[in-house]
Amino acid sequence: MSRGYNFSAGPSMLPEPVLRRAQEELLEWGGERASVLEVSHRGKAFVALNDKLEADLRRLLGVPSNYAVLFLQGGATQHFAQIPMNLAGPDDSADYLVTGHWSTKAVAEAKTLVKTHVVATGEAGKFTSVPERAQWQLTPGAAYLHVTPNETIQGVEFEEVPDVGDVPVVADMSSNILSRPVDVSRYGIIYAGAQKNMGAAGLTLLVIRDDLLAHKPRPLPNILTYAAHAKEKSLLNTPPAFAFYLTALVLEWIDAQGGLAEMARRNRAKTDMLYAAIDGSNGYYRNPVDPRYRSRMNVPFTLHDAALDEAFLSESKAAGLLTLKGHKAVGGMRASIYNAMPLEGVRALVDFMGDFARRHG
Amino acid sequence: MSRGYNFSAGPSMLPEPVLRRAQEELLEWGGERASVLEVSHRGKAFVALNDKLEADLRRLLGVPSNYAVLFLQGGATQHFAQIPMNLAGPDDSADYLVTGHWSTKAVAEAKTLVKTHVVATGEAGKFTSVPERAQWQLTPGAAYLHVTPNETIQGVEFEEVPDVGDVPVVADMSSNILSRPVDVSRYGIIYAGAQKNMGAAGLTLLVIRDDLLAHKPRPLPNILTYAAHAKEKSLLNTPPAFAFYLTALVLEWIDAQGGLAEMARRNRAKTDMLYAAIDGSNGYYRNPVDPRYRSRMNVPFTLHDAALDEAFLSESKAAGLLTLKGHKAVGGMRASIYNAMPLEGVRALVDFMGDFARRHG
Repeated sequence: MSRGYNFSAGPSMLPEPVLRRAQEELLEWGGERASVLEVSHRGKAFVALNDKLEADLRRLLGVPSNYAVLFLQGGATQHFAQIPMNLAGPDDSADYLVTGHWSTKAVAEAKTLVKTHVVATGEAGKFTSVPERAQWQLTPGAAYLHVTPNETIQGVEFEEVPDVGDVPVVADMSSNILSRPVDVSRYGIIYAGAQKNMGAAGLTLLVIRDDLLAHKPRPLPNILTYAAHAKEKSLLNTPPAFAFYLTALVLEWIDAQGGLAEMARRNRAKTDMLYAAIDGSNGYYRNPVDPRYRSRMNVPFTLHDAALDEAFLSESKAAGLLTLKGHKAVGGMRASIYNAMPLEGVRALVDFMGDFARRHG
Repeated sequence: MSRGYNFSAGPSMLPEPVLRRAQEELLEWGGERASVLEVSHRGKAFVALNDKLEADLRRLLGVPSNYAVLFLQGGATQHFAQIPMNLAGPDDSADYLVTGHWSTKAVAEAKTLVKTHVVATGEAGKFTSVPERAQWQLTPGAAYLHVTPNETIQGVEFEEVPDVGDVPVVADMSSNILSRPVDVSRYGIIYAGAQKNMGAAGLTLLVIRDDLLAHKPRPLPNILTYAAHAKEKSLLNTPPAFAFYLTALVLEWIDAQGGLAEMARRNRAKTDMLYAAIDGSNGYYRNPVDPRYRSRMNVPFTLHDAALDEAFLSESKAAGLLTLKGHKAVGGMRASIYNAMPLEGVRALVDFMGDFARRHG
């Protein structure tokens, strides 16, 4: 066997050089005579790794100095709850733009903690587009506006958030972090689970503006307080050390490739190729998303006849094109093509799709 | 360089066969043509891993069928907060036995969530012993009694908890889980961070009795609700997949060694040897802990003259005996000798200690 092209939505494909490096030093890391899995997070070697991780993330993402960069546990879903805990009191309002599966979940998890308001939702159109700014019903005095710039299941993505005045914008970028340059200064919080574009599941990046860290809207245990983690530079308690390490390697890899501008160029080239193949298939393959909001990370598509799905999945798997089954909420197929997916992987998929259509007419 | 004997308190030494297996299959795991870091947690292969992980833990620890076994994120510290959230309302009382650093932290993290009561504390004796049952001032109607059967910093450990009637006993076994057989039926909850005896940091085991799962003492987000995780068999959201995998390997290793009875026998042999060396050194080395409560996992000791500490640390490191520096709260040295530390490692330490004493008179 050999490694396939892995189109899993997350956890998902990692750059092979990152895995090879991790493999090489899994038993002995950095002159420590121990694995990175075995060393104290209070020791010099791990503290240096943590410092470099933060510095590299700041540089790559262009994080202004008035933002803290935190590496936390719990997955983005936990932060659906932790964000209202930290930014709002129980009687405050918080606004949510609902554009698919994940933003719907974000509202649900916040409901016991804050008065949630949906400013607009794409639900009526089955989340195939993003509600226009003119339709958003913002709540005066809302503690924040939560947005999900990429929805992995529906495959909709939007770039910068339109102007919403002084309300802090909180963005769940779990599925498109580091895939393109972002103007961090437009956001109050950017957060992202690591398991798509940054490394291993079990780690969440959270970039937060200083003034929001100073909020104390309700009593909280220390471990759930972002300011406490910021004060200890992400080492308040034992961190998921291997996930820190792996993300550090992924950042080095992105850097060596040319940074976020190069990631954006590659992601555009990959999706241009894939959407062109879908749109040029005379309806054999279909993607229902408003072209202005088609995702550069997750490309759902259906076959003209769902009876062919099973053959498509088994034949693609045999060809080394892995995990193409779509989410049950939208059916069909989904190709997740994060940073680590090379252009060759997408070309192999496009070639297979053409070949499949010819054979199964 | 080669691997040393690593006495780190956590993250700490892992069994070398576990690391070698993880290294071998880091790029391709289980016929998946991908790393275990890259596969979907909803895929068959990972679901099978998760099922086996739970089954192996149940068998090794002897978990009765009326308990759920959860693998969660966040570290034991997060559960200092999540346990009161799940077991008590804001006006309920919860009892805490304070025996050192970690139980002190557990009380502090619970304070915003429940009325905490310290039933007894070893603080006056600098936590060198465990308060006797007769001194405990239990609160009638307490939601639970929290205990910490092993304190890593002070090096005090007690075995089963004395009878406390119907109040559920919640035990933080982060530092001695799987080191000896335990009567699970005596506890309401047993929880433990994985990074000492079970694998990688970033994973917490939580074993909870069914009737406690049914409690709904306050509104909570789903992600912080134990019952929601139980319903989804630990796959409510993306799990820290590599940590699941590593713990599965550690459990297989423990099983192959002979299970928890054999772990207990080895841990007893290791600590018998080390405490004998300390006690037989004519005061050159000292451990201040009440012999009835000396830890089988963490052995703090001081040198008769603290001016020798630096030489001890640099010479031991040169001899491949790593991370022996004690916690600043107690000073001196600390040897953490979890399951993965072989008897040969402790023998090497004892030999070094004898040699050091002779050379530095």
